[in-house]
Amino acid sequence: MKDKYILLASCSDRVGITSLITELMAEYQSNILHLDHFTEYDNNEDSNGKLYLRFEFEKAPGLKEALSSALSDNQIEYSIFDGNEKTKIALFVSKEDHAFNEVLLRVQRGEFPAEIVCVVSNHTNNKHFADAFNIPFYHIPVNKDSKSAAESKMIEICKEHNVDLIVLAKYMQILSDDFVSHYPNQIINIHHSFLPSFIGANPYKQAWDRGVKIVGATGHYVTSDLDEGPIIDQDVTRINHRYNVKALRKKGRHVESRVLANAVELHVQHKVIVTEGNKTIVF
Amino acid sequence: MKDKYILLASCSDRVGITSLITELMAEYQSNILHLDHFTEYDNNEDSNGKLYLRFEFEKAPGLKEALSSALSDNQIEYSIFDGNEKTKIALFVSKEDHAFNEVLLRVQRGEFPAEIVCVVSNHTNNKHFADAFNIPFYHIPVNKDSKSAAESKMIEICKEHNVDLIVLAKYMQILSDDFVSHYPNQIINIHHSFLPSFIGANPYKQAWDRGVKIVGATGHYVTSDLDEGPIIDQDVTRINHRYNVKALRKKGRHVESRVLANAVELHVQHKVIVTEGNKTIVF
Amino acid sequence: MKDKYILLASCSDRVGITSLITELMAEYQSNILHLDHFTEYDNNEDSNGKLYLRFEFEKAPGLKEALSSALSDNQIEYSIFDGNEKTKIALFVSKEDHAFNEVLLRVQRGEFPAEIVCVVSNHTNNKHFADAFNIPFYHIPVNKDSKSAAESKMIEICKEHNVDLIVLAKYMQILSDDFVSHYPNQIINIHHSFLPSFIGANPYKQAWDRGVKIVGATGHYVTSDLDEGPIIDQDVTRINHRYNVKALRKKGRHVESRVLANAVELHVQHKVIVTEGNKTIVF
Amino acid sequence: MKDKYILLASCSDRVGITSLITELMAEYQSNILHLDHFTEYDNNEDSNGKLYLRFEFEKAPGLKEALSSALSDNQIEYSIFDGNEKTKIALFVSKEDHAFNEVLLRVQRGEFPAEIVCVVSNHTNNKHFADAFNIPFYHIPVNKDSKSAAESKMIEICKEHNVDLIVLAKYMQILSDDFVSHYPNQIINIHHSFLPSFIGANPYKQAWDRGVKIVGATGHYVTSDLDEGPIIDQDVTRINHRYNVKALRKKGRHVESRVLANAVELHVQHKVIVTEGNKTIVF
Repeated sequence: MKDKYILLASCSDRVGITSLITELMAEYQSNILHLDHFTEYDNNEDSNGKLYLRFEFEKAPGLKEALSSALSDNQIEYSIFDGNEKTKIALFVSKEDHAFNEVLLRVQRGEFPAEIVCVVSNHTNNKHFADAFNIPFYHIPVNKDSKSAAESKMIEICKEHNVDLIVLAKYMQILSDDFVSHYPNQIINIHHSFLPSFIGANPYKQAWDRGVKIVGATGHYVTSDLDEGPIIDQDVTRINHRYNVKALRKKGRHVESRVLANAVELHVQHKVIVTEGNKTIVF
Repeated sequence: MKDKYILLASCSDRVGITSLITELMAEYQSNILHLDHFTEYDNNEDSNGKLYLRFEFEKAPGLKEALSSALSDNQIEYSIFDGNEKTKIALFVSKEDHAFNEVLLRVQRGEFPAEIVCVVSNHTNNKHFADAFNIPFYHIPVNKDSKSAAESKMIEICKEHNVDLIVLAKYMQILSDDFVSHYPNQIINIHHSFLPSFIGANPYKQAWDRGVKIVGATGHYVTSDLDEGPIIDQDVTRINHRYNVKALRKKGRHVESRVLANAVELHVQHKVIVTEGNKTIVF
Repeated sequence: MKDKYILLASCSDRVGITSLITELMAEYQSNILHLDHFTEYDNNEDSNGKLYLRFEFEKAPGLKEALSSALSDNQIEYSIFDGNEKTKIALFVSKEDHAFNEVLLRVQRGEFPAEIVCVVSNHTNNKHFADAFNIPFYHIPVNKDSKSAAESKMIEICKEHNVDLIVLAKYMQILSDDFVSHYPNQIINIHHSFLPSFIGANPYKQAWDRGVKIVGATGHYVTSDLDEGPIIDQDVTRINHRYNVKALRKKGRHVESRVLANAVELHVQHKVIVTEGNKTIVF
Repeated sequence: MKDKYILLASCSDRVGITSLITELMAEYQSNILHLDHFTEYDNNEDSNGKLYLRFEFEKAPGLKEALSSALSDNQIEYSIFDGNEKTKIALFVSKEDHAFNEVLLRVQRGEFPAEIVCVVSNHTNNKHFADAFNIPFYHIPVNKDSKSAAESKMIEICKEHNVDLIVLAKYMQILSDDFVSHYPNQIINIHHSFLPSFIGANPYKQAWDRGVKIVGATGHYVTSDLDEGPIIDQDVTRINHRYNVKALRKKGRHVESRVLANAVELHVQHKVIVTEGNKTIVF
């Protein structure tokens, strides 16, 4: 794997932006490894007039500074990531282990550049998985009275571990707006339905009641609007009348696991940009 | 293809029902070709306590009468269909041709035992397809004032052609409760979203606004509750941020076409039972 | 969950078989919970003239004996399983952990009625997962000279643990015909390609070389013909030119894991019948 | 839809290529609408050391000439297409109508910028579909003796209609190497299996014999190696033991239709580059 930077950028679309960036890269002898470019060009009605870019490019001395300076001068919003740096993840989980283990095992297997720096749970049954990999496990019970104190403790833990991303792997407590505001677009949740279908409690029961023939799961960023955050990934699985609510839950678990893991992978690879419209560009 | 009957039956689940039916078939020397059996047995909470059965079995003189008598005597609801008889379909269509042509071509190709006996449209642009196969085409314009008269005319046409099933292949007029009551569980509609997501107008615009990563379509029986009828089949297709509303519509058309055609095929093969819970058993 | 038996049966198709079985069940007051029936009836050319049946039905005193006697008397091959009995699985694994963990976690989660009674590996890196669940782990290195002795040891272990099913979860040693003959249709392997594509070594490299747009995995029973055993389940995933061989392997792992776990679940639920034609009926 | 050009380019990968092109576009005040960039960068072993690019960009006077000159000077292979120009397609078909109608109807519906300029068939049963859209239909029977003359006639027809692309929509005659050499990477065929599985005759029978659980279809460019041309698109559909060969053919038809139509759409949108390795880049 080459030493590389990843650049995410967005600005109002106009002639010369891509040229500006690629010229600088050429000047510093940095080869472009990958380039994604998106603007909503063929439908004025749907367009927000913005250009979104993602580059992977070779490291070169001085290039990062030169790019930063040029992008700022041209009113381009941007982030530059080091391709070798691992995203530090805090995994939050309640009782169910499936989504938690899927993310944990993919990370431990080295499938994407991330590190689970801590596990937070309001239960203790998943502690042995964290222990198996020597990952610090924090048991923080939550009830109505303790919620605020519990969240303060969680934030403290996340700060202490320099957490870049919080992954809610079937963490069944609703986080307060205050908590969420500490990690904007840095908390990923798995919702156990194909949003916007079956918002709210017990989506598999709702799905069974309605008699749908397909169920799904949604990986999304957490915002203060429950179940309304920007969607990163979704997937579905075919069912039929033989699936009762319990069977739907079991089959749904497999979809939840892989959708959450995919969403985390996309985020960690810096392939996701959240737009003003509460939506995502997923390059 | 063997000469066969198809039996759909339902009753309160109890010991001896399947035995009763299969004994009669054996007595009349009719071999069972196919047998589906469904009762919600391992979850009392979700169960309605009913048994649903579907048989395909060889024709034998006297068997149909013997079955009818036995089923009636045992309080079993049933329908017996002749495997050689084609379902007579009235295809309703507005301007868009895709779902209409998919159903039309599959029927003409002989993919399932049906016959398009007439085409009804509030537009004329699809007439040439009906003409190509010598299928009677009725142009019945509909506006607010003419709706009631138009529906009377449509019912007259359907009665005249002994229609068994009305297929709304992107027919963009809402049928009145009165019309629907003439054909209970005999009108199939294609809804251009993955229900219950995006009920109502312009589902592709709603999907684009929400930023979902998958869109779908739903084939369902029409009831007096718009978009709430029993779902027969659904399918989905993966999209991304590059799809604007127009592109969603285009990609969605392919899903709509195949979901409608599948739903019609399932109905025509007598594989669908509508339950009390506004749901379907699809064997 | 009700106390139930599962019956798998096959015989030459003829009038009266299903009737014979269901009458007995009715006589013993056993309700039928589920019934699958298959015969290749509408195409003489493809038919082997056989009937395959699977029943789930309530336990009743004396019924099992009565069924056994009636089935034997009528030249019907059959197996009757107790719905409460767990299949005893030996998990074989080499270095890669993904398929192994998927099966292990699904079983530990209680997703299907099985028990991992031992883990056998020619490596030690997966020992800690077995340890976490207190499952006996046997490290049996294999090389050209030790293969025969190693297999003897493995069979001894399997016999000692009363193993019903051996699952090769990326066990990268080829088992001898002699070993396989001890467990006919009781060894399930995951092949890392969509068989019959890319038989043999390094299927992901073969797939990359050919430029396919989809790759897959195959769960099959092991026979003496390598990669030719009866297929239980297959699944695929879409790829594109951006996937190099390493990326194919990574993406393929997810498919391998779920196909193997599904194949094991189907076997354990007694839903699979192997036919004379080296194929499976999967009810 | 904006007036645009589409540029496909490839060359040995090196610093400065994308910069060179985007600078020119900026100089001519042409906004970039879309940009795809591919080089196999993170795996030396798999890489051929080449860079592949695709741009959609606004028309500007003089830009096309400036680009052509710069690209040639830098040893970059390229094609520039006018976004408003429709690809002229000759549709070849034998008896089966499904893939033929799918392509025909998508084109007539305006789903992609193409025009069916003629239909060629060795049968006459599909003539009425061509007639319905006033497309010239040529009936050219083929047998062993007439093949060479028939192909000469076909080439004549294609030349006369300035055909850009020949689509074999279940055209069941094998074209000679000589014919193929007239249209390199300009003939798209639909193969009725998931290549490389089931090469050769009667793939659905082969699939049934092997007992696979999924079947598929492959859209590929035709080369002198039968069934070995570069793959553009593939898709699959799930089957089970209930599908006999006839049912596989029927279900397979739906996959064939949509894979062929997708492959044609990708080609017509100039999204496909054929590489030296007999593979495709599909942007």
